[in-house]
Amino acid sequence: MKDKKKIIQTLQQDNNFLVVSHLNPDGDAIGSSVALGFILKKLNKNFSLYNASGLPEKFSWLKLPKKFCNTLPPQKPKWIIILDCGDKNRMGDEILPWLETCKTINMDHHLHNPLFGSLNLVNENASCVGEIIADLCVDLNIEITGALAEAIYLAIISDTGYFTYSNTTSYAHFITSKMIEQGLNVGKINSILSQTWSLNKIKLMSLVLETTELFQSGEIAVIQITQSMFKKTNTGPEDCEGFINYIRNIKKVKVAVSLREEKDNTIKFSLRSYDKVNVQQIASNLGGGGHKNAAGGILKCSLNEAKKIIINEIRKVL
Amino acid sequence: MKDKKKIIQTLQQDNNFLVVSHLNPDGDAIGSSVALGFILKKLNKNFSLYNASGLPEKFSWLKLPKKFCNTLPPQKPKWIIILDCGDKNRMGDEILPWLETCKTINMDHHLHNPLFGSLNLVNENASCVGEIIADLCVDLNIEITGALAEAIYLAIISDTGYFTYSNTTSYAHFITSKMIEQGLNVGKINSILSQTWSLNKIKLMSLVLETTELFQSGEIAVIQITQSMFKKTNTGPEDCEGFINYIRNIKKVKVAVSLREEKDNTIKFSLRSYDKVNVQQIASNLGGGGHKNAAGGILKCSLNEAKKIIINEIRKVL
Repeated sequence: MKDKKKIIQTLQQDNNFLVVSHLNPDGDAIGSSVALGFILKKLNKNFSLYNASGLPEKFSWLKLPKKFCNTLPPQKPKWIIILDCGDKNRMGDEILPWLETCKTINMDHHLHNPLFGSLNLVNENASCVGEIIADLCVDLNIEITGALAEAIYLAIISDTGYFTYSNTTSYAHFITSKMIEQGLNVGKINSILSQTWSLNKIKLMSLVLETTELFQSGEIAVIQITQSMFKKTNTGPEDCEGFINYIRNIKKVKVAVSLREEKDNTIKFSLRSYDKVNVQQIASNLGGGGHKNAAGGILKCSLNEAKKIIINEIRKVL
Repeated sequence: MKDKKKIIQTLQQDNNFLVVSHLNPDGDAIGSSVALGFILKKLNKNFSLYNASGLPEKFSWLKLPKKFCNTLPPQKPKWIIILDCGDKNRMGDEILPWLETCKTINMDHHLHNPLFGSLNLVNENASCVGEIIADLCVDLNIEITGALAEAIYLAIISDTGYFTYSNTTSYAHFITSKMIEQGLNVGKINSILSQTWSLNKIKLMSLVLETTELFQSGEIAVIQITQSMFKKTNTGPEDCEGFINYIRNIKKVKVAVSLREEKDNTIKFSLRSYDKVNVQQIASNLGGGGHKNAAGGILKCSLNEAKKIIINEIRKVL
């Protein structure tokens, strides 16, 4: 946090910025980039918005201060502002050479961010980078309204799971309270964000949930997704997102397992847990990887064999 | 809102209260009752907490200021405080005779509440009654911490769909911000709240989602829940909560409809919409009630007839 004043001065007094965030950007990466773009626009600066993966289609409803690019601009900026990157290698290879020669501002909230920027504004207690940007607006005397507010809001709800995760800060609610007071229409944004399902997805969900089984006295819940279900409902792997969370809601379940038959006859497995149960370790034992409470991998066998193998691995840990 | 001062005086100066909320209570009915109980306890009053349906099992984790009763106490109170009831007949038959002879305080946020109490504190703009109670705490100089805060939080998230509905107020976020600042652990509460499903509920969900139909070029989505589904999966009406939200997620859907066959062969219908589409009006045309984006009622006919009647009513509005 020590460089905050210098960063504010830099934004006010300097010019030519490139805003960048991590590959495969989530709502915080995009929301905080867009919000910072609006700030730079308000300050009459030259700037570019860049993400190596481009702007995901699901965020195409966002009003932008400037086009989002997936290639670098022709000219090097004076400053690269790096958002939501706990590691400077998360922005893709294209920008790496520029990091050697441009000055950088590193704004982040990841644990153990190594402060790789020329200037660093890292707050591990912030729920999201959007929150850090909102705080900058206050210092810069910029009202958090309109499209700027929508971008900050997207950042907050994405990284707090709609204010439900334990990282949800008092400040996240405070800023949202202020934004609603100043006209933010959360109902409108949330209807855009939630209304993305198809009738086919609902039918697939019905078939998948029907397969739910419990093991190990109800501590393990398993769903199975087959190619024939995709065929029957005219759906694909992208329609399965979130299914595993429903079985994780079952009382006593410590590990939720989703097994998905792939076109090449391998099985993609996903694991979800709460709190202390480390599924990253289980996935890693089976050649996969991930995080403590969300991990997965690939097995080359039948669905039934995969089920046996995975339940066996989970049993060792529970 | 005109009686607010008198209500505060009554709570401070008078004694012997009965707190009651609507049948089949949701998180706001229970949360606001419990919160008001803690206030009365803090003010050293005699009081009872009553709901004709009792305390639902899913809220059994709440710390209570006093036991929740599903029968009336032996003696009539001086004041009956009625929470979250847009209609005084929603509390069950047992209490009706008492309403004639006791003084009543009506605290609510339903549209068109007819102000049936001796004193009325009705704010149609409040997201929930919990918000109205939180505001009372401020006036009464009572800190919103500990179990009182957890009850207010339950009320808020229940009636705002975790801060996502368009009724979500700036004040709901402001109060939550304050509560987190003073120690409210939202991660803990939300993990308790999410792990409440049964395997049977998942199986019921599978059967119900399979019935999904679209009408009016996809603007109306309908699910049906039958007594035979309950029988087959050993479930009941309480296991259906939230199903309607899945079909509301379908692209282009403006009104989601859930039709539930009751034991007495009536049909309970629920309606959900986004933003500008007013389902309260539709429900009201069919003898029901509720809020702008969430309403419902009862029809005495078959499932198929109910479907036709409701689709017809919705068509008039879309």
